[in-house]
Amino acid sequence: MKYTDATQPEIETAMQDAWNAFHAYRKLPLKQRADFMRAIAAEIENLGDELLKVTGEETNLPEARLRGERARTMFQLTSYADACERGDWLEARIDTANLQKTPPKPDIRKMLIPLGPVVVFGASNFPYAYSTAGGDTACALAAGCPVIVKAHPAHAATSEMVAGAILKAANRCNMPKGVFAHIHGAGNEVGEMLVKHPLVKAIGFTGSFLGGKQLFDWANQRKTPIPVFAEMSSINPVILLPEKLKQSVAEVAKLYASSITLGVGQFCTNPGLIIGIESEGLQNFIRSLGEEIKKISPGTMLHPGIFKNYVERRANSLSQPEVETVAVAETEPQLNQGSPTVASASAEAFLNNPVLHQEVFGPYSLVIRCKDMAEMIEVVKNLEGQLTATLMATEGDIKNNDQLTEAVKNICGRFILNGVPTGVEVCLSMQHGGPFPATTDSRFTSVGADGIKRFARPIAYQNWPDELLPDELKNGNPIGIWRTVNDQLAKEKITI
Amino acid sequence: MKYTDATQPEIETAMQDAWNAFHAYRKLPLKQRADFMRAIAAEIENLGDELLKVTGEETNLPEARLRGERARTMFQLTSYADACERGDWLEARIDTANLQKTPPKPDIRKMLIPLGPVVVFGASNFPYAYSTAGGDTACALAAGCPVIVKAHPAHAATSEMVAGAILKAANRCNMPKGVFAHIHGAGNEVGEMLVKHPLVKAIGFTGSFLGGKQLFDWANQRKTPIPVFAEMSSINPVILLPEKLKQSVAEVAKLYASSITLGVGQFCTNPGLIIGIESEGLQNFIRSLGEEIKKISPGTMLHPGIFKNYVERRANSLSQPEVETVAVAETEPQLNQGSPTVASASAEAFLNNPVLHQEVFGPYSLVIRCKDMAEMIEVVKNLEGQLTATLMATEGDIKNNDQLTEAVKNICGRFILNGVPTGVEVCLSMQHGGPFPATTDSRFTSVGADGIKRFARPIAYQNWPDELLPDELKNGNPIGIWRTVNDQLAKEKITI
Repeated sequence: MKYTDATQPEIETAMQDAWNAFHAYRKLPLKQRADFMRAIAAEIENLGDELLKVTGEETNLPEARLRGERARTMFQLTSYADACERGDWLEARIDTANLQKTPPKPDIRKMLIPLGPVVVFGASNFPYAYSTAGGDTACALAAGCPVIVKAHPAHAATSEMVAGAILKAANRCNMPKGVFAHIHGAGNEVGEMLVKHPLVKAIGFTGSFLGGKQLFDWANQRKTPIPVFAEMSSINPVILLPEKLKQSVAEVAKLYASSITLGVGQFCTNPGLIIGIESEGLQNFIRSLGEEIKKISPGTMLHPGIFKNYVERRANSLSQPEVETVAVAETEPQLNQGSPTVASASAEAFLNNPVLHQEVFGPYSLVIRCKDMAEMIEVVKNLEGQLTATLMATEGDIKNNDQLTEAVKNICGRFILNGVPTGVEVCLSMQHGGPFPATTDSRFTSVGADGIKRFARPIAYQNWPDELLPDELKNGNPIGIWRTVNDQLAKEKITI
Repeated sequence: MKYTDATQPEIETAMQDAWNAFHAYRKLPLKQRADFMRAIAAEIENLGDELLKVTGEETNLPEARLRGERARTMFQLTSYADACERGDWLEARIDTANLQKTPPKPDIRKMLIPLGPVVVFGASNFPYAYSTAGGDTACALAAGCPVIVKAHPAHAATSEMVAGAILKAANRCNMPKGVFAHIHGAGNEVGEMLVKHPLVKAIGFTGSFLGGKQLFDWANQRKTPIPVFAEMSSINPVILLPEKLKQSVAEVAKLYASSITLGVGQFCTNPGLIIGIESEGLQNFIRSLGEEIKKISPGTMLHPGIFKNYVERRANSLSQPEVETVAVAETEPQLNQGSPTVASASAEAFLNNPVLHQEVFGPYSLVIRCKDMAEMIEVVKNLEGQLTATLMATEGDIKNNDQLTEAVKNICGRFILNGVPTGVEVCLSMQHGGPFPATTDSRFTSVGADGIKRFARPIAYQNWPDELLPDELKNGNPIGIWRTVNDQLAKEKITI
């Protein structure tokens, strides 16, 4: 099945509809927004196994994974719907008037309101959870923003089906026309038109560094710049501390062989860099990791473009003179299959060769051997911003290496101890965002209900009578949300 | 007294010191940060009337205003210190582990941590409250960021004195060396070096559109872009609704004559645009406003540069063929004095002439006459982003003009009813920030303790034992802050 790129007039119509829908949609009670999101989850479920079949054909992802990802997508929609209704994200603040003050202090009440229409770019590696009805869409709808999705061309039929489910839910819930639009565009032109359209007020993106950076630059070059949350690139360093390495080499190696190759390494939190200090423990770890990697079978990658990219970047990394190949999966790869691979290089090489810092998207990891703790700290200080960083460490390791821990803190959004970075829990405490280039704004997350705040801004009402205020800010607190009233969090009614 | 521009090596030293200080400063308990901020307020008070004298000479601002602004600056420092300690801004989120889930759900705990060294550019129009120890500095210090201030050249001696007070407080509180630095730079070169320095992690700025936009562009062109919060330009539209105009013309005119000329019009919230519908009421309003303006004496402006700018922009606006001068202050202006002025133009002219949208920084306001409500809505839709917008309206006016109200909401950060935009209350519910070009990111504020969040980002700790977590996230909640635990706001200890 082929889809044609949206034309300029089609985009114009979608944008005008979204802009009109914005004014109706943002006025709906939180409960109605939340019910719409829940209806989307239900309509996705109603697509049944046919959806899994279509996506499987488009992405080569196995059914179990797709089933899990579909469940996750529905959980995102329903749990962000719950958060939307709970209203903590609105950051309601009320300061009541004080006429005794000189000059008199007026009544001021603030809450977050939606930015306006949001354009979401579907991700290639998550056809459900970070695409058409994925996390960005769910956050934007919760915030009160209409959404225009640009389908990822690698799973356009999946996107079309999910868009159909969203439109069905919109219809069923009597949502304003234009609250959701779905657009195809295989080239860059459609993306550029979308980002530069004056009625677009924010962008959500998950994908490559080059893609995300381009959107960021376009957005900042607009007459009226708009916020872009692009989740782009991360090699998710794992740091092996000395005591830990003495204790449990085989276990850590096994854990990591599995994390590196999970989903053919096609996760943004894939551990692409492992850092240790030269020692018998590290040698044992490298050997064990190599043995594990050899046993793991190559898997078919998402699409030929990603496969080709993996082959090229892997070859480029392995061909650097300072890089030694540690192990490659023993089973021969079939067409479009990525071979699990582990290589190794010295810290000195890493510090001097920027190629070794690049993400090799796929089942590939590079072990960096440091001479000592000082060099390990130097390596960490020279890392780019990351979504995650992991310490494999004993409590003693942490207590004895404060400088290292502080340096790691500077570069990551999620800081894992004795675990693996793959597996991103959907919950409020999740941070999926990190210093550039992991994302374009480390102050926000794209996973968890705090992601709603990417698409909202505060407005302060000064001197408005109770009757004319939005429900969220009325004295009686009719929808029962938490609010900060005269500097104290409270759910109570205000009596004046 | 003359100050020399900082050299590149001096900037390098300040940055290295700030970076080193960052690692010590961010680890201090919130109480110590807060006490440091309170000590700064005390040291500013200790500068006594000598400070007011120096600033009066540099800025031409009258003593009463300076006394008020100094009190406001101290209140910012102490009230943000209280907010810092209260810890709501940390957005602590805890999701406890659930090992029954498949796969098991890990323990994840998130809080905001400081971004790193922040550069603050002093504002010309607020030598205390938005300069050296002003709102941006207070927010950055509360967040845990060292601050490097670039003094505004128009009040460099004031800045030097306030910087001395900050350094004295830092010394008295045993703060790490480099937690604060003060730098002079009359040209653009110093600013450019600061924004482009790799160890700088965020920028705070209050000033002109051209200045703010330049910093924003430099920051986004860095290899690692950083957030810029620039508060730049706003004409703060005031919309007079029909019923209101019938009721209280003289009162509204008097109120606005005073707001337009407050502080010789040198506030970022100065009402530079007043919009009404052609009617007897509007004619009466314009006449009354003119009569009031004529009676007000010209005042000396901050410095010759601002005066020159006022004269030029005012002349440019008045010379547009569609603009009629309504009234000019009757008293002849002395050297560097800005003459209160009101002019008027049709909505049609406004819609077709971009010059009429430009800020004339000073005691100047333009009254726009609309044919009808439809044209008034059209004018609002064509306004750029604003810090504030004000409706002068009866409750009936609001209820009957929903489309207008919604259009106004789209363009402003603070929405005032029957008041004046001048006078920015320092409180948590304040929003001082609005859609571009009012500020570079409408999702943040530069007034009120929520401004702290501009300089902080979340980090999620996954699977850390209680003992190794920061106090803010420990089970026992030793510092007693509000946290969202398993989706519910709570202050209680966690028992697992």
